Amino acid sequence: MEFTINQIAGMLRGTVQGEGLEKINMLGKIQDAKKGQITFLSNPKYEQFIYTTQASAVIVKKDFQARKELSTTLILVDDPYSSFTVLLEEYHKAISYQKVGVEEPSFISQNATIGKNIYRGAFSYIGSNVTVGDNVKIYPHVFVGDEVTIGSNTILHANVKLYAGTKVGNHCVIHSGTVIGSDGFGFAPQADGSYKTIPQLGNVIIEDNVAIGANTVIDCATLYGDSTIIRQGVKLDNLIQVAHNVEIGKNTVIAAQAGISGSSKIGEGSVLGGQVGIAGHLVLANHTSIGAQAGIGKSIKEEGAKIIGTPAFDVKDYFKAYAVFKQLPNLNDRLRELEKRMLRLNGSLESQIEKMERNG
Amino acid sequence: MEFTINQIAGMLRGTVQGEGLEKINMLGKIQDAKKGQITFLSNPKYEQFIYTTQASAVIVKKDFQARKELSTTLILVDDPYSSFTVLLEEYHKAISYQKVGVEEPSFISQNATIGKNIYRGAFSYIGSNVTVGDNVKIYPHVFVGDEVTIGSNTILHANVKLYAGTKVGNHCVIHSGTVIGSDGFGFAPQADGSYKTIPQLGNVIIEDNVAIGANTVIDCATLYGDSTIIRQGVKLDNLIQVAHNVEIGKNTVIAAQAGISGSSKIGEGSVLGGQVGIAGHLVLANHTSIGAQAGIGKSIKEEGAKIIGTPAFDVKDYFKAYAVFKQLPNLNDRLRELEKRMLRLNGSLESQIEKMERNG
Amino acid sequence: MEFTINQIAGMLRGTVQGEGLEKINMLGKIQDAKKGQITFLSNPKYEQFIYTTQASAVIVKKDFQARKELSTTLILVDDPYSSFTVLLEEYHKAISYQKVGVEEPSFISQNATIGKNIYRGAFSYIGSNVTVGDNVKIYPHVFVGDEVTIGSNTILHANVKLYAGTKVGNHCVIHSGTVIGSDGFGFAPQADGSYKTIPQLGNVIIEDNVAIGANTVIDCATLYGDSTIIRQGVKLDNLIQVAHNVEIGKNTVIAAQAGISGSSKIGEGSVLGGQVGIAGHLVLANHTSIGAQAGIGKSIKEEGAKIIGTPAFDVKDYFKAYAVFKQLPNLNDRLRELEKRMLRLNGSLESQIEKMERNG
Repeated sequence: MEFTINQIAGMLRGTVQGEGLEKINMLGKIQDAKKGQITFLSNPKYEQFIYTTQASAVIVKKDFQARKELSTTLILVDDPYSSFTVLLEEYHKAISYQKVGVEEPSFISQNATIGKNIYRGAFSYIGSNVTVGDNVKIYPHVFVGDEVTIGSNTILHANVKLYAGTKVGNHCVIHSGTVIGSDGFGFAPQADGSYKTIPQLGNVIIEDNVAIGANTVIDCATLYGDSTIIRQGVKLDNLIQVAHNVEIGKNTVIAAQAGISGSSKIGEGSVLGGQVGIAGHLVLANHTSIGAQAGIGKSIKEEGAKIIGTPAFDVKDYFKAYAVFKQLPNLNDRLRELEKRMLRLNGSLESQIEKMERNG
Repeated sequence: MEFTINQIAGMLRGTVQGEGLEKINMLGKIQDAKKGQITFLSNPKYEQFIYTTQASAVIVKKDFQARKELSTTLILVDDPYSSFTVLLEEYHKAISYQKVGVEEPSFISQNATIGKNIYRGAFSYIGSNVTVGDNVKIYPHVFVGDEVTIGSNTILHANVKLYAGTKVGNHCVIHSGTVIGSDGFGFAPQADGSYKTIPQLGNVIIEDNVAIGANTVIDCATLYGDSTIIRQGVKLDNLIQVAHNVEIGKNTVIAAQAGISGSSKIGEGSVLGGQVGIAGHLVLANHTSIGAQAGIGKSIKEEGAKIIGTPAFDVKDYFKAYAVFKQLPNLNDRLRELEKRMLRLNGSLESQIEKMERNG
Repeated sequence: MEFTINQIAGMLRGTVQGEGLEKINMLGKIQDAKKGQITFLSNPKYEQFIYTTQASAVIVKKDFQARKELSTTLILVDDPYSSFTVLLEEYHKAISYQKVGVEEPSFISQNATIGKNIYRGAFSYIGSNVTVGDNVKIYPHVFVGDEVTIGSNTILHANVKLYAGTKVGNHCVIHSGTVIGSDGFGFAPQADGSYKTIPQLGNVIIEDNVAIGANTVIDCATLYGDSTIIRQGVKLDNLIQVAHNVEIGKNTVIAAQAGISGSSKIGEGSVLGGQVGIAGHLVLANHTSIGAQAGIGKSIKEEGAKIIGTPAFDVKDYFKAYAVFKQLPNLNDRLRELEKRMLRLNGSLESQIEKMERNG
C-alpha cells in the first residue's frame, strides 16, 4: 500500500487539512506512529498525542478543534474509527498472501466437488461427497469429513475439524483447532450405574457471515435430520462450548469460554460475556445481555434483559445486592448489637412495668 | 435400513396397532417426521403431535390411550425412548461408513503392533512401540506418541493427540482435538521469582468404555510409574481440564468446561456440572453431585452430597441463602430502620425513666 | 540410568548412610518403590513409609532421625524434594528419545531458515520466511505460519499452531493443540444489528523460558506493529484464553481455563487461579494473587493484593462475607423476629406512656 494523503482522503470521503501530497505506507497507533504512517484520533483521552505524534496524517472527526499547534496533516471525516477500519481492511487484503492452489501432500476424495480459486494447504483432508464453493481457503491440517458442504469465500484456518455432514455457509471464518459436529453429550443411565451412549445422528449448520474463534467446540444434534444451528452473522470467540441441538440467533455475539448446554435457544442480537454458562432446554429472548461468568438457569422471556450472577438476575439489582454482600460481617454485627439491646430493653421495660404496677 | 413396521416391532418386542406392512427407511422427530419414517412419543407434552404426525409409525408406551383419531401405526412398548435409542444405534451402524484400511500418506513406525480390521486415516501418525487392538478407527491427523497402547474397538476421531506412554482401553471414543498426556502444570518457585520446571514423567491411563469429548485435556502424572487415571465407564464432555495425578472414579459423568486440579480424586458414580472447578489434592466421596459453576475447595466425605456455589455447600441451603442475597438491599434498609427505632426507643425510655424517677 | 547409591549421593552432594554400592535404575514413590529404585521423604506425613519401603535408597533431610529400624540406605541432603527433582530431570533427559532429524512426509517452504540439530516430525508444516533456531523440536502436525520466528531449544508438541508473524523465544515449551496468533475478537456493530469484522493485523510475541499448556489460545493484537506479549518466564496452563493486545508480565503463573480479555496488562510475578476471568482494558499491579473462579472488573493498583469473588475483593474479607452469606436465611429470620418485637415494644411503650400520662 502506498497512497498520498489526498488519495486516502478521497477513499474515505474526508477533507484534508494540511499537506496532502505526502505518501503513506503504513498504519500505526497515535502514540507511536512514525513518519509515513497514518493513524486516527477517536477517543478524546488520546487527544494529547495528536500534538506530538510523528504520523504524517491523523484521521479526526470533522468538528475537531486543535487546542495547540499541529505538525501533522488531518483528514476530517464523520467517524474516524470506522474510516481507519476501512484502511485496515484494504491493508489486510494487500499484505495477506493471496494463497491459491494446492500444496502437497494433501488428501482429497475422488468424488469431492471443489469450486474455483481455492487454496488447499498441505496435509488438508477432504472426505467423500464434500462440496466446496469458490474462493475458499483451506489451511494445512484441516479435516473436512464426508458429506460436508462449504459455501463460497469461507476461510478454514489450520486444523479446523468439520465432522461428517456439517454445513458451513458463505463468508465464514473459522479459526484453528475448532471442532464442529462432534457427538453431543448424551448418555442414558443404566440400572447398574453405568451409562449407555445415545447415538448422535444430527449435524451442525453454520449460516453465512459467521465468525468462530480458536479451539471452540460445536456438537451435532442428536436425532437424524436435526441440527445444531448457528444463524447468520453470529460471532463466537475462542474456547466456547455449544452443545447438541442449540440454536444461536442471528447477529448474536458470545465471548470466550462461554458454554451453552443442550437444546437451548439464544435469541438474536444477544451478547454473552466471557465464561457465561447457560443450562439446557432454555429459551432466551432476543437482545438478551448477559454479564461475564453469569449462570443462567431459567428461560428469559422479556427482550433486552441485562443480567448477571449465578443464578443471574438484573445487573443493577445484582450489584446493589453484592455491595451489601461485601458488608455482611458488619450487618451481622449490627444485628447482634440490636438483639442485645432488645434483650436489655425488654428487661428494663419489664422492670419498669413492674415498678409502675407497684407504684400504680 | 429398510424394514417393515412389523419387523421393527419384532426387534423391539413391541405390539403393532394398525398397518404393519409399511416400510420404514428413516427415523425422525414426531413434529416433523414424514411418511416412511418412524418416531416415538415419550414426553406427554408432545402428545398433540401424534394426532397430526405424518410418520408411518410411532413408538408409544404400552398403556397409551389415544384421545383423538390416529392416522399413524403404533408400536406399543415398555419404554418408547429406550426402544427408539435401540433403533438409532442400528441405524447409526448401518449408515456410518464402515471405514477400514489405510489412507495414504500416513506414518507408522516399523515396530508398531497393529490389530485386525483397522482404519488409519491420511496424515495419522503412529510412533515407536505402539500397540493397537482390533477394530480400532484412527481418523486423519491423529497423533499416537511412542509406547502408547490402545485397546480394541476404540475410536480416535480426527486429530486426537496421545502423548508417549498413554494407555487407552477397549470400546473408548475420543473426540477431535482432545489432548491426552500433556505435561502436568508443575513449577518450583526460585529465589529470583522465576520458576523451574518439574519434569512430568508419569502417564495417563484411560480404562474401558470411556467417552471423551472434543478439545478436552488430560495431563500426565508427575512421577515415573504414576498415572492420571480415568476409570471405566467415565463420560467426559468437551473442553474439560483434568490435571496431573487426578483419578476419576467409575461411571462418573462430567459436563463441559469443568476443571479438576492436580491430585484430586473424584468418587465413582458422581456427576459434575458444567464449568465446575475442583481445587487440588481433594477427595470427593462416591455419588457426589455438583451443580454447574460450583467451586470445590474442601474434600467431601459423605456419599451422595448435592452441592453448589463457590465455595460449594448443600444445594437447598445455597438457594435459600441466595434468595435472601437477592433481597440484601432491602434487608439492609430494614436493619437501618430498626436501628433508628431502637435509638428513638432508647431515647424515649430514658426520658420515661427520668420522668418516673421524678414522679416516683 | 544406572548408578550406584554412592554415585547418586555424589551428584546431589549428599552423605550416604548405609550400603552405598547397590545399583539404582529407577525412581519411585516411597509407598510403592521397589528394590533397585530410589525415592525421597520430604513431607513428614509420609515418614511411616520409610520403615517399610522396599526402595534401595531414600533421599532424606540431613537432620532426619529414624524412630525405628531402617532396611534402606539413606542419602542425607539439604532439600530432599529439590534433590529428587534433579534426578528426575536427569532421568527425563536419559529416557526421552533424543529425537533429531526429519520424518517424511513433512512440508517446508524453500525460503525457511532452519538451525542445527532439529527434529521435524511427519506432517509438520513450515511456511514462507520462517526462521527456526538450533535444537528445536517440531512434533508431528505442527503448523508454523509464514514469517514466524522460533528461538533455540524450544519444543513445539504435536499439532501446535503458530499463525503468520508469531515470534517465539528460546527455551519455550508449547503443548499440543495450542493456537497462537488467531484473530482477536473485534467486531464493530452496524446500524442493522449486524457486526463488521475489524481486521486483526498485529502478532503475538512469546519471550524466553515460557511454558504453555495444551489447547490454550493466544490471539494476535489488532493493529499492525502491535503485539500481544507473553513476557519471559511466564507459565500458562491448559485451555487458557488470552485475548488481543494482552500483556502478561514476567514470571506470572496462570492456572487452567482462566481467561484474560482484550488489552489487559497483568503485572509480573502474579498468580491467577483456575477459571479466573479478567475484564478488558485493566491494569493489574505486580504480584497480584487471584483466587480460582474470581472475576476481575477493575484495575488493581496496589502490589501484592490477594483477591477472590465476582467481582473480586480481599480474600479474607470475601470469606468472612461468605460465612455470613451461608447464614442469610437465619439472619433474615432474626431480623424479622426483631421487627416483630420492635412492633410489640412500640405498642407496649405507647400504652405505658398513656398510662403514665393518665397517672402522671
